[in-house]
Amino acid sequence: MNSPLLSLSRRVRRTPFSHRVTDAGVKAYTVYNHMRLPTVFESIEADYHHLKRHVQVWDVACERQVEIRGPDAAKLAQYLSPRDLSRMADDQCYYLPMIDENGGMLNDPVFLKAGTNDAGNRYWISIADSDVLYWVKGMANGLGLDVDVFEPDVSPLAVQGPKADALMSRVFGKTVHDIRFFRHKTLTFEGHSFIVARSGYSKQGGYEIYVEDSSLGEPLWDALFAAGEDLNVRAGCPNLIERIEAGILSYGNDMTIENTPYEAGLGRFCNAPADIDFIGKSALYNAKHPHQQIRGLLIQGQPVPPCTEPWVIDAAGVQVGQITSAMWSPDLNANIGIGMIHTSHRNKGTSLTLHTPDGERRAEVTSLPFELPATA
Amino acid sequence: MNSPLLSLSRRVRRTPFSHRVTDAGVKAYTVYNHMRLPTVFESIEADYHHLKRHVQVWDVACERQVEIRGPDAAKLAQYLSPRDLSRMADDQCYYLPMIDENGGMLNDPVFLKAGTNDAGNRYWISIADSDVLYWVKGMANGLGLDVDVFEPDVSPLAVQGPKADALMSRVFGKTVHDIRFFRHKTLTFEGHSFIVARSGYSKQGGYEIYVEDSSLGEPLWDALFAAGEDLNVRAGCPNLIERIEAGILSYGNDMTIENTPYEAGLGRFCNAPADIDFIGKSALYNAKHPHQQIRGLLIQGQPVPPCTEPWVIDAAGVQVGQITSAMWSPDLNANIGIGMIHTSHRNKGTSLTLHTPDGERRAEVTSLPFELPATA
Repeated sequence: MNSPLLSLSRRVRRTPFSHRVTDAGVKAYTVYNHMRLPTVFESIEADYHHLKRHVQVWDVACERQVEIRGPDAAKLAQYLSPRDLSRMADDQCYYLPMIDENGGMLNDPVFLKAGTNDAGNRYWISIADSDVLYWVKGMANGLGLDVDVFEPDVSPLAVQGPKADALMSRVFGKTVHDIRFFRHKTLTFEGHSFIVARSGYSKQGGYEIYVEDSSLGEPLWDALFAAGEDLNVRAGCPNLIERIEAGILSYGNDMTIENTPYEAGLGRFCNAPADIDFIGKSALYNAKHPHQQIRGLLIQGQPVPPCTEPWVIDAAGVQVGQITSAMWSPDLNANIGIGMIHTSHRNKGTSLTLHTPDGERRAEVTSLPFELPATA
Repeated sequence: MNSPLLSLSRRVRRTPFSHRVTDAGVKAYTVYNHMRLPTVFESIEADYHHLKRHVQVWDVACERQVEIRGPDAAKLAQYLSPRDLSRMADDQCYYLPMIDENGGMLNDPVFLKAGTNDAGNRYWISIADSDVLYWVKGMANGLGLDVDVFEPDVSPLAVQGPKADALMSRVFGKTVHDIRFFRHKTLTFEGHSFIVARSGYSKQGGYEIYVEDSSLGEPLWDALFAAGEDLNVRAGCPNLIERIEAGILSYGNDMTIENTPYEAGLGRFCNAPADIDFIGKSALYNAKHPHQQIRGLLIQGQPVPPCTEPWVIDAAGVQVGQITSAMWSPDLNANIGIGMIHTSHRNKGTSLTLHTPDGERRAEVTSLPFELPATA
């Protein structure tokens, strides 16, 4: 099936960068948090090669923020997190699996302390594709906590790729080099303060700028492109090939509310000590030894077709899992995929049968991230 | 801007009817509740004319259900509703504005009692485009209520148009004629029981079949098409022109969390008596006299371009509102729109200036639904 057209409306929200993205020749979108997220500029493969060699600016405004403020903000945040937040530094970004009362994943956001303003401490949950705002509001109201919960006017812009440091230091100054991985600083652009984190949905290195105030989106975009011309800066977007190679999961694709963090390989983030109470705690305790778990798969043969629904994996005719993301990797010269595999067949090197729309393929279990050749 | 392409993935969920929709030649989609919703088959205008004259089968699986079960289910439902549920009959469908603690609209679902099964009473919230599941789960957990809240395997299929009665009676029997507007009955198809309601996102008459069990989607689709050949049955979808003419609102387009039910013209559904407590009650009390309200607008000139973001409405250079949906209506031989207009300028017949991407247009305030000529 070829890609169909996407009908646009206000409900599929534009971003502060949408005009620039259109001018840059975006070819396709997905919809993410009721907002437009570019998926292709030149081609997925051309975008991939460029991302690994140069620097790209990504409109990831769809990574919406859920802001929590007020006297009970810290208490609510911890109650919504299986990760221990008590020793989190003010400049840290915490990747955390959000779960419901059954231990099912609701989202896999990045949590950060967004400093203070006149109204007090601000906490941001930078979300994947589901309405975490509704979950947090529901819990806050039900528990009767003294907080405000809302979506602020904040739109992340990512700068990704090996030349991201060079480009960012030209626009924000050399202090960007001092930001460690998954840490953030408040930096200044034309007199406006933005939180800038060393983070992003790729393994090529880079930053996410939390652009607070939509009207500043285009000036910042333009400044990055003006400063990066000799760095071959281009508009880009999260790249399907690169993120599978890197083993970066996609909520809604690789795990859903049906999966626990342990199944998704995120058990290491469920480290709240026994004396901390959080939603889903007892369910999570019983989920520590899952029947299935996320793995990488190397898939034989020609490039696979687009993986737009789960593909069954079997062993000797019995289903033992499913693949939920798959794509041809030029640097691995092989098809790569991410899937959930039953415990019985999840060991590295296990050979399995994958059912694609184009027919059966042999596939081999491997670890994530994929091991790339040294030259890639 | 022409329509861009939509990249498909598991996260943009297919429906039980997706194969049939593809075979029927769907041309474009939107994404709604993380799921594919067709928007165009032949063309928006051709689909419109067909809908008004014949009968269409619509894949509206994206109207997901949030099921609430358990001893506290009725209590929770009422706490989440500004509409009095106490006198709702077992076979009624209730349109209700869901609001947050500030009176802001979270969704505008249809609420129904889906009968009982071995696990007790079942309540369904048939939702517009936002994760009501997270809101209900959050409230239930926060309040410590004894309920289960989940998304069941239920995918609505709509049969809409003046010949819907004829087609439905051939497949479900003449008892469909006995279903009154916004009421439902449990009917049988090939030995399987489905809730069938006289409802739908058009004013052409018709039904919504709550298809419980995805594997029954294609057999039901095929039976409807086999039975309706001489009725000129076609695959269709909610039609932008028809729904604006009918004054049917779209959550996320015409109203958002920034708007109260009173602004959206839904005050008549906020009728819970004083002794019933519900979330947002005091905020709603203070919102009864809104500064702006939904109105229809007749827009002069040639067909307007697609309305993909709000268009400013002004009076003598001062902004007095915005339009959020607009389209050329063949039967009215005019452009029609839906927007929020300040109280000062909302009276029928008020002349205003609309700013479209193609330039200024004169527009006139009117009531909803639009008054169609008798011949249309």
